[in-house]
Amino acid sequence: MSPGARVSPIAVDAMGGDNAPGEIVAGAVQAVRERNVPVVLVGLPQQLEEALAEHDAVGEIPIIRAEEALGMDEGALASLRRPRSSIAVACHLVRRGEAAAVVSAGSTAGVVATGRLRLRAQPGVIRPAIAVTLPTLPQPTVLIDAGATADAKPEMLVQFAHLGTAYAEVALGLRRPRVGLLTIGTEAEKGNKLARRAHELLSTAPGIHFAGNVEGHDLLTRVVDVIITDGFTGNIALKALEGSVRYAFDQLREAIAGSRMARFGALLQRSRLRELQRRLDPETQGGAVLLGLNGTVVIAHGASRAGSIASACELAARLAAQRIVQRIGERIAAAPKPHRLW
Amino acid sequence: MSPGARVSPIAVDAMGGDNAPGEIVAGAVQAVRERNVPVVLVGLPQQLEEALAEHDAVGEIPIIRAEEALGMDEGALASLRRPRSSIAVACHLVRRGEAAAVVSAGSTAGVVATGRLRLRAQPGVIRPAIAVTLPTLPQPTVLIDAGATADAKPEMLVQFAHLGTAYAEVALGLRRPRVGLLTIGTEAEKGNKLARRAHELLSTAPGIHFAGNVEGHDLLTRVVDVIITDGFTGNIALKALEGSVRYAFDQLREAIAGSRMARFGALLQRSRLRELQRRLDPETQGGAVLLGLNGTVVIAHGASRAGSIASACELAARLAAQRIVQRIGERIAAAPKPHRLW
Repeated sequence: MSPGARVSPIAVDAMGGDNAPGEIVAGAVQAVRERNVPVVLVGLPQQLEEALAEHDAVGEIPIIRAEEALGMDEGALASLRRPRSSIAVACHLVRRGEAAAVVSAGSTAGVVATGRLRLRAQPGVIRPAIAVTLPTLPQPTVLIDAGATADAKPEMLVQFAHLGTAYAEVALGLRRPRVGLLTIGTEAEKGNKLARRAHELLSTAPGIHFAGNVEGHDLLTRVVDVIITDGFTGNIALKALEGSVRYAFDQLREAIAGSRMARFGALLQRSRLRELQRRLDPETQGGAVLLGLNGTVVIAHGASRAGSIASACELAARLAAQRIVQRIGERIAAAPKPHRLW
Repeated sequence: MSPGARVSPIAVDAMGGDNAPGEIVAGAVQAVRERNVPVVLVGLPQQLEEALAEHDAVGEIPIIRAEEALGMDEGALASLRRPRSSIAVACHLVRRGEAAAVVSAGSTAGVVATGRLRLRAQPGVIRPAIAVTLPTLPQPTVLIDAGATADAKPEMLVQFAHLGTAYAEVALGLRRPRVGLLTIGTEAEKGNKLARRAHELLSTAPGIHFAGNVEGHDLLTRVVDVIITDGFTGNIALKALEGSVRYAFDQLREAIAGSRMARFGALLQRSRLRELQRRLDPETQGGAVLLGLNGTVVIAHGASRAGSIASACELAARLAAQRIVQRIGERIAAAPKPHRLW
């Protein structure tokens, strides 16, 4: 990009999330001031100006008016009835080229439905998918689809492999990421019908570095860089993982508190344990990314606070700068066409 | 049962498992001597006699000859080719009324395939399912199906609800256990096609105390007593849970070892942490139970040692004494017939 070239801002859905608009606006201010990411806020102007005033930031961040907000408990249908919701307007800005990508902490179902409707699937992509990163070391592992497409076809899983590969390249800087298929045994014939057919297709898919099947206990062992699954299984696996890690730490805290070692336990927690727990806590992770549409939507956790929103803005800016949509488009264009489109 | 009535023994597949036959035989000896559970050992007589001799138990436990064993890496097909495998012979003993139930630490795929072939589905049951218990407090939570039927139909999930309810009543002593459907949102319309249709059917199923949808993060929160899912999703969720708990503890151990608090951490581990880890470790759990066949098969973990095998024998004896197969039969007979059978 030439010096001085105008960088499109990230459109932040300021009304979505448990802590909207206060923490969302605070995160946007952080993104602008500390991470050098230009943003626009989308929502109810009066509320947003009040929130900006708390940071002496009125006039520093543009506000785009949206008439209403999607409730956190509203699902896909509500999004169809609300063409002027903050998330719909944010998507519209991307569609018109006035924003580079969207960040929202709104309900996943609402964000996915609105994104599909307002941004539409990019050419050749059958269904969008949500990519998340699992907290493995030394690098995260990409899981895709974490919940956008609950009823997937084998051909969609192959496309998810392209989406996930492009994402791993751009977001994690990996070259030729290894792709694994999530199923219930390492042999090719293991799994349900969907996984067995997807295994066949992935085995011969050009442009995919397919490393074979992985199982549920491989989510955190980093045997591959990208794990492919349908949105139903992926969402359950992700939430099982989150719930288990949280449970293990809760039990640990109880065990420490109930022991004669409690004081030492408290010391321990102050140091590395807290850091560890933060790393494993999904709420501090970067956020989920909706891929396969004509524009990228970073879905921050509903409970996000300012820091998470700023990170989500930074991720959205990086994905846009590295042209993730175009990269996916090139991959899909180069791939053999699925037998039929849905 | 009248005093002195002959109690049928548990048929133990002595050749199945990573530590067979040594640890299996040791577990059988424990079951007989310490838990008052009668067993017969099925396998290669010479090896079993040698193993029994180590416990001065030759002649104490009957041996039934089997010509061969299924390898731990052998799947469903191998079981069809091995009518004289130890697991096949053990199932045969139950079919002929000479044993009350089977215990095997063999490969799950091989045990399920052999069980289906040799014991056959009980009348009215479309497909068998594997029930496991998740380590929640104050009582475990039943997850069913953990991997027997990867491609399930909605009507099968309703049957799994009956199997899981009977299991919770017998194994956990619960009255009117609450049943939840594993899916990706709490609203009725959330999920894939299978889950949405199963939700409809479960909502009106007589004899089932249906409490609605649960999500992946509810596996360990005990919002219900029994969690229903297909064998593909259930297996991945279970392994995700196991892998995550193990990962959290590994990371914890590393954090403790690397800190200045290492000594105190080591002290901590000696006390309640170790107990906690044992409770959360799937390998120390009772074992999975294959339900819906004309006979019950307890599938112990492949890495089981003597103590786990003895526990599995005790569980098998309890399930048989409380007539789990008949209870399931009565439930299925009383339930409305599925529209069509597969």
